[in-house]
Parts: sequence; structure tokens; C-alpha cells
Amino acid sequence: MNFSADDHRYMQQALRLAETATRRAAPNPGVGCVLVRDGAVIGEGATLQVGGDHAEIQAIKDCYARGLSPAGATAYVTLEPCSHHGRTPPCAGRLITEKIGRVVAAMVDPYHEVAGRGIAMLQAAGIPAEAGLLEAEARRVHRGFLSRVSRQRPWVTLKAAATLDGKTALLNGVSQWITAADARRDVHALRAANCAVLTGSGTVLADDPQLTVRDTPCLRQPTRVVLDGALATSPTARIYDAGVAPVWLATTVTDETRLQPYRARGVTVLALPAPAGHVDLAQLLRELASAGINELMVEAGAGLHGALLQAGLVDEMVLYLAPYLAGDAARGLFAWPALTSLDDKLALEVLELRMVGRDLRLTLRPRPD
Amino acid sequence: MNFSADDHRYMQQALRLAETATRRAAPNPGVGCVLVRDGAVIGEGATLQVGGDHAEIQAIKDCYARGLSPAGATAYVTLEPCSHHGRTPPCAGRLITEKIGRVVAAMVDPYHEVAGRGIAMLQAAGIPAEAGLLEAEARRVHRGFLSRVSRQRPWVTLKAAATLDGKTALLNGVSQWITAADARRDVHALRAANCAVLTGSGTVLADDPQLTVRDTPCLRQPTRVVLDGALATSPTARIYDAGVAPVWLATTVTDETRLQPYRARGVTVLALPAPAGHVDLAQLLRELASAGINELMVEAGAGLHGALLQAGLVDEMVLYLAPYLAGDAARGLFAWPALTSLDDKLALEVLELRMVGRDLRLTLRPRPD
Repeated sequence: MNFSADDHRYMQQALRLAETATRRAAPNPGVGCVLVRDGAVIGEGATLQVGGDHAEIQAIKDCYARGLSPAGATAYVTLEPCSHHGRTPPCAGRLITEKIGRVVAAMVDPYHEVAGRGIAMLQAAGIPAEAGLLEAEARRVHRGFLSRVSRQRPWVTLKAAATLDGKTALLNGVSQWITAADARRDVHALRAANCAVLTGSGTVLADDPQLTVRDTPCLRQPTRVVLDGALATSPTARIYDAGVAPVWLATTVTDETRLQPYRARGVTVLALPAPAGHVDLAQLLRELASAGINELMVEAGAGLHGALLQAGLVDEMVLYLAPYLAGDAARGLFAWPALTSLDDKLALEVLELRMVGRDLRLTLRPRPD
Repeated sequence: MNFSADDHRYMQQALRLAETATRRAAPNPGVGCVLVRDGAVIGEGATLQVGGDHAEIQAIKDCYARGLSPAGATAYVTLEPCSHHGRTPPCAGRLITEKIGRVVAAMVDPYHEVAGRGIAMLQAAGIPAEAGLLEAEARRVHRGFLSRVSRQRPWVTLKAAATLDGKTALLNGVSQWITAADARRDVHALRAANCAVLTGSGTVLADDPQLTVRDTPCLRQPTRVVLDGALATSPTARIYDAGVAPVWLATTVTDETRLQPYRARGVTVLALPAPAGHVDLAQLLRELASAGINELMVEAGAGLHGALLQAGLVDEMVLYLAPYLAGDAARGLFAWPALTSLDDKLALEVLELRMVGRDLRLTLRPRPD
């Protein structure tokens, strides 16, 4: 493939449009599309909410709204145009009808109903169409959707906060407000960018959190998911108020009498098998993917965090370190069995490091050591 | 006081000279001096090793070496010129003899033999002399000397290294090489900038370290100080090789038979009182100050680090965080009794934050919360 500097520039613009649409479009991919003719942008669009227009259709409408026709234009799209009738007609068909001159996609759509058929449809209609421009960037922007359709689990971002010596709470359980207001606001923005926020029964029991987005703009409240295998939390916990945002209860308990008080508050129950008496986390993530969760944020305690990390189910971690020391006799970040060799420690790569107010903020990714 | 932009510029230059001289001059202050006449620098100097020239004398010699005379010049010095006969004659007297036109000092020397008398001598001789230009910067450069003479203890920098979750070693004691080569080299440079490196018996027993400066330029090896109240370390430990660098043993043991094997290797014994059966850390620091230690680096374990922090005896901390997680079942950074309120956590200020190779490096200062 041979793409020009202009091709790169217009695809960058399409990627920026995609970023604005990811949360709105979920569980669909939030695609961006830019129409260009004779060196000028003549239409722009990004995917609307489910059931609404895809990016290509929005860009074509934008073009007509400018009093122009898209015929002969090059369409830059961050993901291959769809070829199937879903909730909307296929975008590849519309691009053909509109006599688009050329189509450049950042990447092929791995979704089994598309998977190259969109490009093939266009080519069969005589329209030059190719994929692979800025693909790594597109994979980053669409990571939630791609993870769900390719790995059958959400893209998982674990958020944790501790003192500089790795402590999250005192031994007596006192834990609130380790980080300052700026970092807490940053956490709310992270929540707003995710389809769901997962927590554990221990956190609900200890902190009674809401895990909603507050004090920051929010298009759609993420779904709160409580993992409570044995139903240890009270149905009166604040998180079970389905009036403020959707809330799901993932449990192995099947006794309807016990589940009823949760359902009465609007809670959706996800039934989990418990093969060895404990919840299978990989299975939980598969369930969440099936339910349309592209991006999952985890905000739980040392047990669930440690288990997810040890199981290799964390894609990225955002770690806030507050400039305090609590000393060894306090609770730590990640619980797992004692290591016997330092070779077994979990290796991370630092993707980003900055101060958020007076706290440190690290973005990390597990890496092979 | 009213200093010009030029005054600031020349004092900055004197401060840079001072920085190069601190380690060489210790336990004297490593002062910088710049001589300026008619808008041109005509001489520069910094304090030599003990018994050698002070900065003013070096700058005057430099001036003559350039074929010029210092008469009528302004002398910028980072610390008030001395007024007493120590190992060398008083610098204030020499500045008068040389008919210097004006003296600007960054700060008054708090040392009891000077303490304003240098400025007074100059003024009495009719030379305009004042102090207070870039004083905060000078206090930073001379912090070790100032701490020793004003607080009777060294400036204490604690160095610690841990994984991102605050772990220094596994429960089985395995601990070496948590940080990578770049950070370890950085630690050696830190050692080279300190008069002494303090460690505890636990670290000597666990790691058998040398605590010398290697793989980086080093003017003078720092003195290694082992705090071993009950004489638990073996005299054959690598650190007790006085052939590579000075080594002191701070202990409450007074039995000469037990001390003899250490002395035989060239170890200097510092006798410590043990009032309540344990070592008084403030007393240890007073002893080190009396022995001429301006800057002390601490490289020990969670016990000594925690005790120094809790006692308020740490001025600055350099913390290396390696991008790994070890999990809660591993050893932590700072040991002290369990806190019952988060108000009791130790608050820090982040002075500097950067990556050193793949590890994080934080410079921190205790602060009131």
C-alpha cells in the first residue's frame, strides 16, 4: 500500500472524529469519516448512537448540507465500511450509490458479518478501496470494539490509587480520600469513557460507592457491575440505585427469593456459573462482552485487582500515587499468593507519567519481562 | 537590599562554581567566588579541599594569573567571607588587602566564628559589603554545611527503591536488582555527592553491600557508616573493607574484645549510648555532624528508614519505583507501627519526577499535611 502525506492527514482527522464517537456509539464502533475532493474536505461524520447513522452516512449528509455532492470524493474511514444489513443498511452500498471515487479504511473490520466484505463490495463496483492506513492508531481508538468482537471480552482498564508506598487503606479499613480532588475528577472522566465499571462485593461493603460519573461531562453513565458471587452485599447499597445509572449484579446465587430485593431496585442479574465454588473471571468478561460492553473499567479492591492481573485479564492500568507514606502496617494494592522468585513479579510498561494536581498518574501496560 | 540584574547573573555563576566544590571542600562549605570589574569577569574560584584555599583566594589568584589586579573589583561570594584564623587566614582580611571595591555575599555564614563578622570587617574597612542575593539558592547549595553548623546534624537524604506497589523484596528475602542499570548508576552518583552513606545491620546481613561509588566519577569515596547497635554483623562483611573507602561502625557495644576484629580491618568505632536499650537516632546524627559529615545518604531497610522518617530526621527522599508489581505478600518500604487515622500518614511534597531508564525517580520532601 502506498499512501500519500495528504492521505495520512485526512485519516488523522477521521481518527479524531472517531475518538469523539466511541462512547456514544457503543457497543458499535465509533467510526470517523472524512470526504475529500480536489484537496478540500467536503463532508465529515462520526457514528451516532445505536440505530442511528454510521459515520459514512453522517459524512454524506454533511456533504449535502454544504450544498455539495459526494460523487467522486475519497472517503477516509477509520474502519472498513459495513457490508451487511444490521440495524441500518450497509454503508458500502451507500458509498457505491453515491458514486464515491475512492475509499481508504484504516483497518478491516474483524466483525464476522463484515471481515473484508465491505472492501470487496466496493472493489466489485469498480471503486478503488484499500485498508491499512494508520492501522495501529485505529486499533487504539477502536480497542474496545475490537476486543469485544475479536477476543470476546472487553478492553479492561484497571484503576487503582495508593500512597507512594503502595498502601490503599489502613489496617482498620480507613481508606477514603487518599488522592486529592484533581485525581478524583480524573477518575470520573475515566469512568465516563468506559461502557461499564466493575467492582467487587468487598468494595461495596467497605466504601458503599456509587461509581457514577459526577463533576465532569458525561454523555452516558457507564453501567455499574458488582461482582458478588455469594451475595454478600446488601440490596440497599447505594450502587444498586438503578435510577441514576444502570447496575448489574454478577452472582452465582440463583435463588430468586434472594435476588428479588435487588431486582426490585432495578438491578439486572447476570447469572454466573461457579465451577470450583468460585467465580471464573474470564467467564465474567465473556458475559460482559456478550452484553455489549466494549470498554470495562475496574475499580475494586486488592483481591479482585490481584486476581485479574494474575489471570492476565488486564489490558491497561491507571495508577494514582498520592504523595504520602502510610507504612508497612497498612493494606496493599494487589493481593496474590506470595512469590518465591523475583522472576514471577508482574512486569509493566510505563505508557504515560504525569502529575494530576498533587498526585502522580501513571498509565501502565503489562509486558513480558 | 537592591541588587541589579548583573548582580544576579554573577551570583548565579558563583553558585555554579560552589556546586562543583561542595564534595571536595567538605566538611568546609564549598563556596564559589566571581570577581567582576567594568562588566567583565576577571577572576573565578571555588573552595579547595580542607587546608587549601577558600574560594575568594582562588579567585584572586585566578585574577593575577590572567595578568590583572583585583583592586576595585566586586567580589560575588556564595557565603560570607570568613573573619577568623582557621586552617587558613581570614578571607575578609585578604579582600581588604587586595583593595576589593565591593563585596556581595549570597548569605551570612551561620558558623559561630563568622556569623556576620566577615561583612562587618569589610564594612569597617570602608568596603561596601552586603548579604542576601539569591540566598534561597545558596541555602540549597550549602545545605549540608548549614545543617551541620546550624542543626548539629547532617542534611539527610534517604534513598529507597521498590516496585510500583511499594515492595522492596519478597517474603523470602530475595531482593536484588529491583531497579535497572540506569537507576543503579544514578544511586552511585547520589552516593558520590554525599559525605557518608548510612546503612543498618539488617541490610549488611541480608545483602552484604559495599556501598561504595562505582561506575561513575567520584572525587572522594563517601564514608560508609554501619548502624549496628548490638554488633550483629560479621567483621568479615564486605562493607568493613577500609581499604576501598572509610568505614565507621556505630554501636553501643563497648567490649574491646568484640570490637577488635572490626578495628583490625580499619573500621572506626563510634560509641553510641543506648539509654533505653536502643540507639538514639538523633544522637547518632549529632555524632556524625561532630565527625564532619555535612551530607548523609541513608540506604537501609524498612526498619531504619521508617524510624528516621517517623523521627522527622529525613530532609529529602529519592525514591526509585521499578515498573513491576510484587503483590501484597512481599516486604514493604517503611516499617512503623500501624496508623489508626489517615491524618497520621506522612505527607510528602514532590520536588522532582522523571524516568531514569525504565524506572521512575521521585525526589520528595516531608511536608506538613
